Amino acid sequence: MIACHDSSCQVIYVSRMKGMLRMESNQIFEKGGKASENFTGTAYVKMLVPDKKGVYNCQVYDVFFEPGCRNDWHTHEGGQLLLCTHGIGYYQEEGKLARRLEKGDVVEIPPHVEHWHGAAPNSAFSHIGISPNTQKGGTQ
Amino acid sequence: MIACHDSSCQVIYVSRMKGMLRMESNQIFEKGGKASENFTGTAYVKMLVPDKKGVYNCQVYDVFFEPGCRNDWHTHEGGQLLLCTHGIGYYQEEGKLARRLEKGDVVEIPPHVEHWHGAAPNSAFSHIGISPNTQKGGTQ
Repeated sequence: MIACHDSSCQVIYVSRMKGMLRMESNQIFEKGGKASENFTGTAYVKMLVPDKKGVYNCQVYDVFFEPGCRNDWHTHEGGQLLLCTHGIGYYQEEGKLARRLEKGDVVEIPPHVEHWHGAAPNSAFSHIGISPNTQKGGTQ
Repeated sequence: MIACHDSSCQVIYVSRMKGMLRMESNQIFEKGGKASENFTGTAYVKMLVPDKKGVYNCQVYDVFFEPGCRNDWHTHEGGQLLLCTHGIGYYQEEGKLARRLEKGDVVEIPPHVEHWHGAAPNSAFSHIGISPNTQKGGTQ
């Protein structure tokens, strides 16, 4: 067992398993509740900032997709912003090729644009999601 | 060999794989440009989503504060949301005690509330900042 002893580290440990080095990453946020509706596969959604209309008009949440899990085609009335934090995923807009996503990538999804996002077949994936302009409506 | 000796470090682990040293970062985003105005100490700000009024009405950015660095007292016309991603920091609203922050903490700062945020004296600190409602104005 090889370990980083610093409690503030985010990428925190490496373990020797069956002769192979394995590295894992700590998530920033605790895993949220299981969400199956509107997903192909299993995702976990943790609400970070619930919608407060008239104050922030903005909802923020963390989504953890199990490998192969993605959401259905959908749109947002006020647009959506994704901040990729872990793993490998994909984003696709209607009529375009899917875009590969990894940690540090940012996706801007304009209002009313049909799209989906989720994990690669062989990797989990996490992103922070930001839904601004909630006074304009929600997810369709 | 794995090591992380510094609670404020960005390079988080080093592993010897096939005779080569490999270094990886625990930060999600690349460090942005140095910002000294409006800060006591040195901070680095990376813009993730520039303001697009009429589309997202929302600005998103990553801030890395060196140990002891904080910003001046200020307000946001549309409020501000902080997602803490690394290290130890503080947040204070006028007339209240400072609140200690660590990875995974979320701060909701209502419009017009005077406040500051920054790193602890002996730890660097990073947060994602979200400024919604940019159509209502900026930072004062």
